[in-house]
Amino acid sequence: MRDRVIIGSIMHAPNFGEVDICRDAIITVDKLGKIASVTRPTDPNYDKEKIKAKEDKKLEIFPDDSFLLPGFVDLHIHAPQWPQLGKALDVPLEVWLMEYTFPLESKYKDLNFALRVYNDLVDTLLSHGTTTAVYFSTIHEKATRLLADICIKKGQRALIGKVVMDNHDQCPEYYRDTSYQDALEKTVSFIEYVFAMKNNSDGLIKPVVTPRFIPSCSDKALEGLGKLAKLYGCHVQTHCSESDWEHNYVLKRTGVSDTKALKEFGLLGRRTILAHCNFISGEDMDIIADKGAAIAHCPLSNIYFSNAIFPLRRAIEKSVRVGLGTDLSGGPSASMFDTCRYSLNMSRVLEEGTDSEKNNKIRGVEGSRIDFREAFHLATAGGADALDLPVGRFETGYMFDAILLSTTSGKSPISIFGDLDTLEDQLQKIIYTATRANIVSTWVSGKRVSQGI
Amino acid sequence: MRDRVIIGSIMHAPNFGEVDICRDAIITVDKLGKIASVTRPTDPNYDKEKIKAKEDKKLEIFPDDSFLLPGFVDLHIHAPQWPQLGKALDVPLEVWLMEYTFPLESKYKDLNFALRVYNDLVDTLLSHGTTTAVYFSTIHEKATRLLADICIKKGQRALIGKVVMDNHDQCPEYYRDTSYQDALEKTVSFIEYVFAMKNNSDGLIKPVVTPRFIPSCSDKALEGLGKLAKLYGCHVQTHCSESDWEHNYVLKRTGVSDTKALKEFGLLGRRTILAHCNFISGEDMDIIADKGAAIAHCPLSNIYFSNAIFPLRRAIEKSVRVGLGTDLSGGPSASMFDTCRYSLNMSRVLEEGTDSEKNNKIRGVEGSRIDFREAFHLATAGGADALDLPVGRFETGYMFDAILLSTTSGKSPISIFGDLDTLEDQLQKIIYTATRANIVSTWVSGKRVSQGI
Repeated sequence: MRDRVIIGSIMHAPNFGEVDICRDAIITVDKLGKIASVTRPTDPNYDKEKIKAKEDKKLEIFPDDSFLLPGFVDLHIHAPQWPQLGKALDVPLEVWLMEYTFPLESKYKDLNFALRVYNDLVDTLLSHGTTTAVYFSTIHEKATRLLADICIKKGQRALIGKVVMDNHDQCPEYYRDTSYQDALEKTVSFIEYVFAMKNNSDGLIKPVVTPRFIPSCSDKALEGLGKLAKLYGCHVQTHCSESDWEHNYVLKRTGVSDTKALKEFGLLGRRTILAHCNFISGEDMDIIADKGAAIAHCPLSNIYFSNAIFPLRRAIEKSVRVGLGTDLSGGPSASMFDTCRYSLNMSRVLEEGTDSEKNNKIRGVEGSRIDFREAFHLATAGGADALDLPVGRFETGYMFDAILLSTTSGKSPISIFGDLDTLEDQLQKIIYTATRANIVSTWVSGKRVSQGI
Repeated sequence: MRDRVIIGSIMHAPNFGEVDICRDAIITVDKLGKIASVTRPTDPNYDKEKIKAKEDKKLEIFPDDSFLLPGFVDLHIHAPQWPQLGKALDVPLEVWLMEYTFPLESKYKDLNFALRVYNDLVDTLLSHGTTTAVYFSTIHEKATRLLADICIKKGQRALIGKVVMDNHDQCPEYYRDTSYQDALEKTVSFIEYVFAMKNNSDGLIKPVVTPRFIPSCSDKALEGLGKLAKLYGCHVQTHCSESDWEHNYVLKRTGVSDTKALKEFGLLGRRTILAHCNFISGEDMDIIADKGAAIAHCPLSNIYFSNAIFPLRRAIEKSVRVGLGTDLSGGPSASMFDTCRYSLNMSRVLEEGTDSEKNNKIRGVEGSRIDFREAFHLATAGGADALDLPVGRFETGYMFDAILLSTTSGKSPISIFGDLDTLEDQLQKIIYTATRANIVSTWVSGKRVSQGI
């Protein structure tokens, strides 16, 4: 049943490599925030629908220099690292954790601190157009509950996990789970809290089983989490083959790659999101594809912490499901537009290579590039598909999770020349240059959750 | 003689690798826009100066969440390519020129088109904080004059060149100089126009001898331009060893590298700005350093058109003068903040390498990285030094070319946590995340030339 109606121009990328742009589409949304219909000017009933729309009291019409895009799906966010965004980028992963990140994350035992940071983070991400966020929290169950409360209150679709890290060798005494049993209990407690949350009957907030990564977890914790994931049927998130150090640590400890080890621990399935995966082999890719797990490609943090660029196109060609993640604060931007651009740019750099002293035959990795249509898909429908969520597209039956983007807002860096730019050109310019300043409104499940400019 | 006084917090990077941050500095500016004094709270006369300042009718005091930064010096901009920013990024340089860029640039024989684009471009760059712009125009002298007129009217410090391209083999009939003589005559005419411009007695606008690059010019044009550069003592700009194709073309035609060929044509001197230089050898670097020429490093366009990343740190270690350029539209951003970030990011990617299948001993180029302090220097004082212009620093005797940046403006992507971030942390966060939305005002020679938010 239609609840409200919108007339606006839509730009989305339902399939990898294709974009679909339609001026003045009529979109009806039902009471639950689901898209009830999308009518295009080429549809035979368009004129009739338009007359009906114009009589609707809840009609909203958006101007010609504005476009509706699907809200972004950010597959990898470290919520507690928000105060660190744009700094602490000078040391490798294993040093960064000990020197900057664990000390910061340990502060979230203080709920006032958590409240202040998480409120600001969720507001900011909504204003950046991130409608679905996949969060790592900290080891603290209470602060993790608080993050869930804030997301539901502010209306952000979120998958949230209490981080598990109980391995004494890799986690400092001041910031680790007291035992594997305690880690598992708190994970169960958080999962059940989310399932029982008021106003969450539609599953806007979902719990995620979250071993930080193999180095920080004992085998017993990993085995236990594998069982919990199966028991509750919930999502799993972790880091996988991120850097030379991390990949080699796991090889040494388990004798196999992260991918194979995670599989053995029961942590690799259709609902698993693996961040990074820079060092996975072709065989690992086949296992991931076979299990239906998804990869969160985080191009910005690749630059600082991964010692290599994720072979994105190769993974897609092997039918691995892939979406994008900011990995804030390992990636120094909260913007999925930036993440889109970096996925493009890094794919080009991987293809071309970097060192001009090397012969161009061996400098790069041929056939690595993606284009703006593909990046846009990954940041929206691709991420949604990775989570099996009905968002990321303007199609009947999908939730209305969207942003309204103005190309002419004050301080917009987008430069459109109407007579020289086709609508697809305009989309390309949006993908290459838009910032938070271009986002007028953000909706989740049909509800306006952010409004600016 | 002081004309006006400002109290505000300054952040600048006068020397490579160092930043200087001072809360509540008192800056006096003279009638010509030159900084007459900078007084810091640690100076013995600060209190006296503050009392004097507070009595000044022209006093401006900026709030605590705002910082004065030097205006940006963008060493490489293709003004006519502005309508193309954020598109046309799918083909290599030599195809891109023929397919997209020459057709677009040829439109500037129409002065109405030029007026529309250049007005919009200069306004936009000023609002992005670019106070000094080094422009390639097109082959059209009239449109190039128009660009100079617009820059002086809007108050942007600009170095501008009429592009020379007369080589029939590399330039299409519809877009080339009719002969080398004609190209030289129009270059002379433009140079003399700029020297005679009204209101340009302080040299805000400077003419630049501008062979597009060796492939597009005949030897006679290059020789003639070398002589003109000497005769008029003006700046020279061109592209140098940009991509595999371009570098090899010059090797084949001249038997030597771009650097050596430009030297032979009399085009390499203290006032030369060489864009890109991705494929220069160690010997080329020595020649460039010896001649005192400067390099405009354009990290964003490196990704799309250069087949490699410029070895920035190596050049700096060889005492080559280097600044940054957007290279719009080869680089898909007009923002020098983006350019700063990409210079950082690309230096890290060059250091780490990209291909995880390669052993990490041979994957990257050790010792290539720069940090945010160094990038900030290159984008401001470094670029100014490359041009021998007295801008880019808050020091007595330098021109007051500056931006006021607010960390809390609406739609700011900068996230500051006052109790957790030192002032240097705040600068790092600015460098990593600021956009046009953070720039409140831009001044050139003490005159406010852009104001927003």
